[in-house]
Amino acid sequence: MATEMTMDTLVAYKTDFESGCAEFLSRYPDSELYAPVRYLMGLGGKRLRPALVLAACEACGGQKAQALPAALAVELFHNFTLMHDDIMDDAPLRRGHATVHEKWNDNLSILSGDALHVMSCEALLDAPAEALPDLMRTFHRTALEVCEGQEQDMAFESREEVALDEYMEMIRLKTSVLLAASLRMGGRSAGSREETLDALYEFGLHVGLAFQLQDDYLDAFGDPEKFGKQVGGDILSDKKTFLLIRALEKAHGADYDALRSELGQKKEGKVGRVLDLYRRLGVDSELRDAMAGQVALAEGALARFEQSKSGALQGSKAAVSLLHGVAAMVTERLS
Amino acid sequence: MATEMTMDTLVAYKTDFESGCAEFLSRYPDSELYAPVRYLMGLGGKRLRPALVLAACEACGGQKAQALPAALAVELFHNFTLMHDDIMDDAPLRRGHATVHEKWNDNLSILSGDALHVMSCEALLDAPAEALPDLMRTFHRTALEVCEGQEQDMAFESREEVALDEYMEMIRLKTSVLLAASLRMGGRSAGSREETLDALYEFGLHVGLAFQLQDDYLDAFGDPEKFGKQVGGDILSDKKTFLLIRALEKAHGADYDALRSELGQKKEGKVGRVLDLYRRLGVDSELRDAMAGQVALAEGALARFEQSKSGALQGSKAAVSLLHGVAAMVTERLS
Repeated sequence: MATEMTMDTLVAYKTDFESGCAEFLSRYPDSELYAPVRYLMGLGGKRLRPALVLAACEACGGQKAQALPAALAVELFHNFTLMHDDIMDDAPLRRGHATVHEKWNDNLSILSGDALHVMSCEALLDAPAEALPDLMRTFHRTALEVCEGQEQDMAFESREEVALDEYMEMIRLKTSVLLAASLRMGGRSAGSREETLDALYEFGLHVGLAFQLQDDYLDAFGDPEKFGKQVGGDILSDKKTFLLIRALEKAHGADYDALRSELGQKKEGKVGRVLDLYRRLGVDSELRDAMAGQVALAEGALARFEQSKSGALQGSKAAVSLLHGVAAMVTERLS
Repeated sequence: MATEMTMDTLVAYKTDFESGCAEFLSRYPDSELYAPVRYLMGLGGKRLRPALVLAACEACGGQKAQALPAALAVELFHNFTLMHDDIMDDAPLRRGHATVHEKWNDNLSILSGDALHVMSCEALLDAPAEALPDLMRTFHRTALEVCEGQEQDMAFESREEVALDEYMEMIRLKTSVLLAASLRMGGRSAGSREETLDALYEFGLHVGLAFQLQDDYLDAFGDPEKFGKQVGGDILSDKKTFLLIRALEKAHGADYDALRSELGQKKEGKVGRVLDLYRRLGVDSELRDAMAGQVALAEGALARFEQSKSGALQGSKAAVSLLHGVAAMVTERLS
């Protein structure tokens, strides 16, 4: 199965990343400030972003080592955002373990997060010199977009109504741009030209949107055995996801009143009733269509990427097929 | 008077900085995320750090415009640390106005601080290309040291005993290295060589230590009319400053018991009694000696700076005399 092959290749990149990451972290002192950094980085995760950096570099004909600084930068940055987001969300758990602010306290979590942010910048300084200014520009611009996305996400919580285009813009900023930047930075580390980098960026943007929409879908309709988190969590917390936003837009009369009456309450059987409403309104298939649309756009960008390279230095075929596989993962997990 | 001339030159650099800063901030959107950034940056301050960046650049024969990116980077970074420190200290006021977390909330203060940190990195990207990697290295390394200093400062609060060398190391990290880096980055923006930059850095380090020790001194023995803050604030909060640390080390018998009995209490007349003890133990003159020692080291570094430039491109005489003036400010304010 394609997904299994993709997972194997991802694991191989993850292994490369982990050894580079261990060496990088060993450069920092063994003091209180860095203990939360080592703890959070040690909780692991799929390392999807650094794997995409390394894959993009190899797909562009570069060597993995050239892209390791960029891979470290995006993963350290991602973990910095997790450390601060967990304070803001008052989240008790991260990857099944106590969050940093629970294990230590809010103040050290703010401060160690700040240090981790600086470390992500220091990691990038080892990138190939000719690529460095451009990498920095992409990295910092993306970082600001991620902050903007988090700000919008927090603002949506206290808003009565959120339109679908506002929601799509929020998830683009909060999650997709960092995937997109990972791919672009991998290609840039290999020295690829602008046209190639633009295609990689767009590929990442659409894959990121597809992943986030898939998260919305699985949180509602996922198999509890396969889905890591509690199914129905978004419904219980009235989270303004694609499903709720579209359902509120489409529902009329009794359906609208029924949906509205569930919000702000946690009455017995809420998840089941809301899921029934979602199905009756057809927002489940709308969401699947939206995902498929993002996957198609991602594949289109990938085709442009391959065209842009023709005649240029050949890249690793395994890396290119990983990128195809990552896009396919979205639809395969649904079937 | 020398101090007045120094202040005039500082104000001139501040004016240059403010117009560059206004232009820089105008590049960012007018959204919620940036409102706390504009608010805090708008509260002003002496802008000592960016003034030192610009002065160091001119003292090295460069043009102010070359150093504006570095000046922006250090001042934006400094304000980012203020925004986060104020959350950690639960401070209600900053420069006489509500702190960001009081005016908005903790979450937006964390997030806007993070954005401000990114903005400081983006500002530096406009630095002269040949200087950029080295500027980035100094900037990020210094940022980590500032985080380490803040961590130590917080840790000292809950510790029974702090030795003087630990205290000096903490204030070096928390406040001096950023002044030192400001001077180095100004010189680097002008294209100066390593020997010159090292002298500038060391000058900044000792000036920074002198300023911090002066703060400790004025908080205890300052003229309430001239000192901006409440005199005796450190004593009332049992802050482990140079004075308290040395007094606890030097006091014996009844003096030691008297000093210990004041800690953790706010009995009527505490400030006066502790000041008497400080005088009797001679830690006030010890602190003045320590300050004078740092000023002498700063002046020594400045002499090395001037030697290192001889024969090279001449720098602005006004800028060099500003640096002398800044060192002299420490001792003049005491007399």
